[in-house]
Amino acid sequence: MESAKFKKGRAVLDTSLFVNPDVRASFGENPTAALENFLFLAAQVPVFEFYMPPSIFSELQNFVEPGKITGELLVYLHQKPPRKFELTVPAVFIYELVEEIRDRVNKGLRIAERAARNPEGKPTDEVVQELRRKYREALREGIIDSKEDVDLVLLARELDALLVTADQGLIKWAEKLGVKWLIPERFKDYMLGLIKRSRDLEAYEAEEDRY
Amino acid sequence: MESAKFKKGRAVLDTSLFVNPDVRASFGENPTAALENFLFLAAQVPVFEFYMPPSIFSELQNFVEPGKITGELLVYLHQKPPRKFELTVPAVFIYELVEEIRDRVNKGLRIAERAARNPEGKPTDEVVQELRRKYREALREGIIDSKEDVDLVLLARELDALLVTADQGLIKWAEKLGVKWLIPERFKDYMLGLIKRSRDLEAYEAEEDRY
Repeated sequence: MESAKFKKGRAVLDTSLFVNPDVRASFGENPTAALENFLFLAAQVPVFEFYMPPSIFSELQNFVEPGKITGELLVYLHQKPPRKFELTVPAVFIYELVEEIRDRVNKGLRIAERAARNPEGKPTDEVVQELRRKYREALREGIIDSKEDVDLVLLARELDALLVTADQGLIKWAEKLGVKWLIPERFKDYMLGLIKRSRDLEAYEAEEDRY
Repeated sequence: MESAKFKKGRAVLDTSLFVNPDVRASFGENPTAALENFLFLAAQVPVFEFYMPPSIFSELQNFVEPGKITGELLVYLHQKPPRKFELTVPAVFIYELVEEIRDRVNKGLRIAERAARNPEGKPTDEVVQELRRKYREALREGIIDSKEDVDLVLLARELDALLVTADQGLIKWAEKLGVKWLIPERFKDYMLGLIKRSRDLEAYEAEEDRY
């Protein structure tokens, strides 16, 4: 049987867990309720630590009722930036990032040209709306495109933590860097599993003490 | 006085040295002549090695007369790719790259929107021409945007070599990574300086042998 003294597990959480309505459903009906519910569960998992980069935490604060960020939450949800000047990444990622962006930049130009030509003679406002949507889709989706994204994936790498995110760009990079990941929809179940495991271990230790 | 047995110097060369008309002027009136002149000088500098990533060499071949890539040239101008799966870069570069690209992508969208609105009522073809020029300027210039660029800067880093390039995006990255760089306009002078130094060292060694 596995030793009771196992290494503490760690997870790095993206905001989507609390903010995205589809994702947070299992935790609560609004971001504040989801955060309170998370805290209730986190307090029952002494074998696990939860982290969030400060940049992500600051995003989260825009969605939560003021005054609901309690001292207790700050204890259970550690705010830690990655050691960005010490961590390194294999150079091959620079190639992948540069190539992927190059493809997207070319695609962005084709979308822009089509909008400028407006072959179907649509009203200008409609053309501009469509341009914005398609351009953002082509250049941003499924790619690491902000320092908050980089914070998440690097922190998970540094801590050897489970990255909990719904962002496809982040998942792609997590895969490349050997970072464990889990979609937020499964995270409440995961926490319930951790709680059960903690109790089993306690019971096992109590059992051992008896003999 | 410095020991005659100093470490061999190395340089990594970009195509601009031979291809860009303003830059190659000191070497020759066309790419083929510039390459031949370079070879003539390189053969006189036993204390220095010249490198080019294969991706860049392959670009160069588009500009040089077929049959002018001699075996001698291949001996003096080493083709070597960087060890991209072994080299690492500080994670902070990922932040810088991602942030820079984000700014440029936003700028690209503003340029595209302006083209789609065409407030001055210019002819469509003119609008599209201008869009292409401005978009490429905003998204490509002064940034590392191809695997050839990454090859150059990483190879220079790996070999602790002097990077000879006119590309502002490459120079910016060379500065960040502690890579020596030189603008191609100064490179012929630099080679002449190397030749003089080699001769001085030979004379010094001959002098020492006499006593």
